[in-house]
Amino acid sequence: MLHSRWFLEQTTEHEGAFHSLSEIVYSGISPYQRIEVIRTGSYGKCLVLDGKMQSSEVDEFIYHEALVHPSLVLSDSPRRVLIAGGGEGATAREVAKHQAVREIIIVDLDREVVEISKRHLHEWHRGVFDDARVQVVFEDARRYIETSRGVDVMVIDLPEPTSGGPALMLYTREFYSLAREALSEEGILVTQAASSAVHNLRVFTRIVHTLKQVFPVVRPYTVNVPSFFSPWGFVLASRRKDPLQLTAGSLNRTLEALPGGLAFYDSETHVGMFSLPKYVRKALEGEESIITDSSPLSFY
Amino acid sequence: MLHSRWFLEQTTEHEGAFHSLSEIVYSGISPYQRIEVIRTGSYGKCLVLDGKMQSSEVDEFIYHEALVHPSLVLSDSPRRVLIAGGGEGATAREVAKHQAVREIIIVDLDREVVEISKRHLHEWHRGVFDDARVQVVFEDARRYIETSRGVDVMVIDLPEPTSGGPALMLYTREFYSLAREALSEEGILVTQAASSAVHNLRVFTRIVHTLKQVFPVVRPYTVNVPSFFSPWGFVLASRRKDPLQLTAGSLNRTLEALPGGLAFYDSETHVGMFSLPKYVRKALEGEESIITDSSPLSFY
Amino acid sequence: MLHSRWFLEQTTEHEGAFHSLSEIVYSGISPYQRIEVIRTGSYGKCLVLDGKMQSSEVDEFIYHEALVHPSLVLSDSPRRVLIAGGGEGATAREVAKHQAVREIIIVDLDREVVEISKRHLHEWHRGVFDDARVQVVFEDARRYIETSRGVDVMVIDLPEPTSGGPALMLYTREFYSLAREALSEEGILVTQAASSAVHNLRVFTRIVHTLKQVFPVVRPYTVNVPSFFSPWGFVLASRRKDPLQLTAGSLNRTLEALPGGLAFYDSETHVGMFSLPKYVRKALEGEESIITDSSPLSFY
Amino acid sequence: MLHSRWFLEQTTEHEGAFHSLSEIVYSGISPYQRIEVIRTGSYGKCLVLDGKMQSSEVDEFIYHEALVHPSLVLSDSPRRVLIAGGGEGATAREVAKHQAVREIIIVDLDREVVEISKRHLHEWHRGVFDDARVQVVFEDARRYIETSRGVDVMVIDLPEPTSGGPALMLYTREFYSLAREALSEEGILVTQAASSAVHNLRVFTRIVHTLKQVFPVVRPYTVNVPSFFSPWGFVLASRRKDPLQLTAGSLNRTLEALPGGLAFYDSETHVGMFSLPKYVRKALEGEESIITDSSPLSFY
Repeated sequence: MLHSRWFLEQTTEHEGAFHSLSEIVYSGISPYQRIEVIRTGSYGKCLVLDGKMQSSEVDEFIYHEALVHPSLVLSDSPRRVLIAGGGEGATAREVAKHQAVREIIIVDLDREVVEISKRHLHEWHRGVFDDARVQVVFEDARRYIETSRGVDVMVIDLPEPTSGGPALMLYTREFYSLAREALSEEGILVTQAASSAVHNLRVFTRIVHTLKQVFPVVRPYTVNVPSFFSPWGFVLASRRKDPLQLTAGSLNRTLEALPGGLAFYDSETHVGMFSLPKYVRKALEGEESIITDSSPLSFY
Repeated sequence: MLHSRWFLEQTTEHEGAFHSLSEIVYSGISPYQRIEVIRTGSYGKCLVLDGKMQSSEVDEFIYHEALVHPSLVLSDSPRRVLIAGGGEGATAREVAKHQAVREIIIVDLDREVVEISKRHLHEWHRGVFDDARVQVVFEDARRYIETSRGVDVMVIDLPEPTSGGPALMLYTREFYSLAREALSEEGILVTQAASSAVHNLRVFTRIVHTLKQVFPVVRPYTVNVPSFFSPWGFVLASRRKDPLQLTAGSLNRTLEALPGGLAFYDSETHVGMFSLPKYVRKALEGEESIITDSSPLSFY
Repeated sequence: MLHSRWFLEQTTEHEGAFHSLSEIVYSGISPYQRIEVIRTGSYGKCLVLDGKMQSSEVDEFIYHEALVHPSLVLSDSPRRVLIAGGGEGATAREVAKHQAVREIIIVDLDREVVEISKRHLHEWHRGVFDDARVQVVFEDARRYIETSRGVDVMVIDLPEPTSGGPALMLYTREFYSLAREALSEEGILVTQAASSAVHNLRVFTRIVHTLKQVFPVVRPYTVNVPSFFSPWGFVLASRRKDPLQLTAGSLNRTLEALPGGLAFYDSETHVGMFSLPKYVRKALEGEESIITDSSPLSFY
Repeated sequence: MLHSRWFLEQTTEHEGAFHSLSEIVYSGISPYQRIEVIRTGSYGKCLVLDGKMQSSEVDEFIYHEALVHPSLVLSDSPRRVLIAGGGEGATAREVAKHQAVREIIIVDLDREVVEISKRHLHEWHRGVFDDARVQVVFEDARRYIETSRGVDVMVIDLPEPTSGGPALMLYTREFYSLAREALSEEGILVTQAASSAVHNLRVFTRIVHTLKQVFPVVRPYTVNVPSFFSPWGFVLASRRKDPLQLTAGSLNRTLEALPGGLAFYDSETHVGMFSLPKYVRKALEGEESIITDSSPLSFY
């Protein structure tokens, strides 16, 4: 062990990861959470909330492209996009690449996350907060969504729900029903959906099963985000729009029009991430639990 | 941190994983390496060689099915299968499911790995050492392959090469040339090929690039093996046989004939694992280094 | 880091120790606590309760000799000795070396600690449970002491009090008053008293200050117990008997009569452990907090 | 585990310590070693060389007072003091408190340690580098001592010898012979002498035994330095001067004259640190190894 300074993250009761720590860029406590920006030998600069790795300079493009583009490409005219969470700006950065988008509303509870990101995480937001289409609202996302209407794409980019934590009520059937009402007729919801690792799969499968109670089309997909220490699940849901019907041609045509281009997502990546391993599909089929307001899901 | 006993694995200079440790089933030192069989809270029973997780009870099926079946299905008549490494028996267990196979030769340097596996890792080998088709040879795999001929499928299931370690010369162009000569005309080689994580991709891309110097058809693929703490690369190589031309129909027909069935691999999984993310493909295209006997590759 | 299996103990919010782990001799959960017997590369066999190192094969003689002999030597005729805690038998082992002792009562809440020690910790108890003078009572020590009388030496050998834990009420002024009533006129109480490290001294100084409310003679002393990762405090208290008045001659005479001899304690050691560094004495003088039933002390 | 950033120090092959890490004040590599100044939750600011804790803001006074004052008090007129190592200035700070001292020569190999300490470790040096009596020489201490004469007190304040490291030849019989020649007739040498923990005692006992080959009076002593994770040994050696003959009266008179006063050392502390536990004395008596240039000692 050559290094003596380490960032340790316990990801479940029984396992975790460690990373050599070369710099503590920022460390503080907001009214909502502990916020750290650190630099590691493995992943460069990292954003850490309450001790959990949120994203890293080296591989955040995987997470954020996977979260944003399938829905944005699938939407015919994504004019109005709402991001729940995502205060560090990277999700908005990806959304803003789509020229059709007129309005990007970031709803994040924690003003300090946005402020600290503006100061320390330029690699994440790339100046998107100055984009005239972007609006930041500091409010509980659920409350905001209750009165929202006409959203074309809603991106749920929240940390894991924990008992007593602010995201607990943002993964329930009732929340998804509110989200559906906020969407336009052709609207699409996409949510990050926790680990899809074989031994730690049930949060993912429950989110999928819960979304199926609310939306006719529900498509889970997974990608590798190395700094998450695990394969990671996402779910796209809608009334009608189905990402499995996207053709390589139309998908690539849309992507080629994006300024700057993408590093992770294209038509082959799309096929790879929607083609789930057999054991994941089996676990999804076998899931029967529904997450509700009265029985919410607390990760770890 | 509720637990006080941990297994720590440093996977690169800058990162690693920890797992709660509930039992030390076996711990000893062979002439070649430190061998441990432990039980963790995250992955159940695990085989650890020289401090590196080799496979775990919970997710070894992912690794071993991914390693074995694409080649075995692709081969028209896989009569003679050679496994370099794989002394714990799980690779042979998967190979043995294919009825066409007449001969399974396991070439492992370390007799103690086989003996300890027989005693402690029944979940891995499932009795395959008693299969009349299986033969175990305790020898350096490269030397054995030099004089082998007519191999239909060669499975390279070795630990990572380290400077001074026994696997160092089993990932070079010269080794792959010897392997090609050992293969039958329609023969297929498949090798595990290290991490395919975005920040740690170069071993994988060099193995692929080196194989391209020797074989006309070279197909990299990746899967998630959570206990490896990273997405993992594999490469299939041959003179003619191409896994991208396998149809879902023929693939599933072959798999349905296997006794016991599979948990990971089927036609949708196949599509997923051969559809690489854009950044992986780009890194593969950009690779120009060839691994040779005079300039071998030492991982980590 | 050559070893991959470790025992980690967090000793305060901000620090802890790790030890290479070579064997898990026993691991289980009693009605009162998690009990582990492990073997480490640094300290050999260790007893661990609720994740806290209790004593190790290599240095338990320091702790147990320091805990027992100053009081036993000081007592003119230690006929009746009560041990609160100490279920693993090592304290009783040291007490039993004194021929004058007629009765050794071990009061430990947790029957399983005694049973597991009998099975796995012979190095600790050395068969003392078979000594006819020894009696083991499975009861709350405070309750037992309420009705005890005529105790010549009372040895408080308990784990650290934690909120909600069983030892919480065994470090209070009210407890010490009960203990005083249980003692004979010439009786002596001795208690382990937590870390005496400079940055972590307040539990020790509060115990001393609390005992001063109850006993006329209160003598703190400290020793090095390496496996505790810290210098360690003890306190001897009595109505009259004062260890500072022991002469080297009488002390050594008493010790020479003990069968087997001692490895840690003799007259020079005695001088060393009762001669406290200046900063410890200053902290003791400055302490004003009293631990009471209504305001008990929770370590860590 | 509330904290996620940790400083880990492996102190032997089998054990180590961890500390929560709140700030990386400085991190760099000099021609001789890795130098870090960090802030921990347990010990405040810490100086770390090659991953080894050298001293901490919270308890460096224990180490430096113990290292310096017994010799300085014992010396009748400590005019000329040579410090081997000690580039961070705290040893010189303690020496400078003695008014009789006319000359303080710090011989440290590593210019960067001194520069970084001037910038970041004011708590250590307290401006002593501006004291007109202080001279800093950047040279190998052994070479410097070869031509030194008339030193009244020589303080060996070096990191542990490691094979290939710069301190390897500064703990040998030949070095001590050179040191004796550099001392005045009444001169005194004192050296830090590694851990005195029961399971890790042999470096300490060998240094003592080696010094006995060269000096008629050799007095080992030990103190608790919590951040060293172990009790710590020192040795005072001379031709005639004996610290065991210091009376409390004369010792305290000398100390009272020091400006600022001391926090650790006084006559009672003196008695405590020269009164060694029985097992330490026994290990010292049994030691027969001599450290020589041809057979130097490599710690850990």
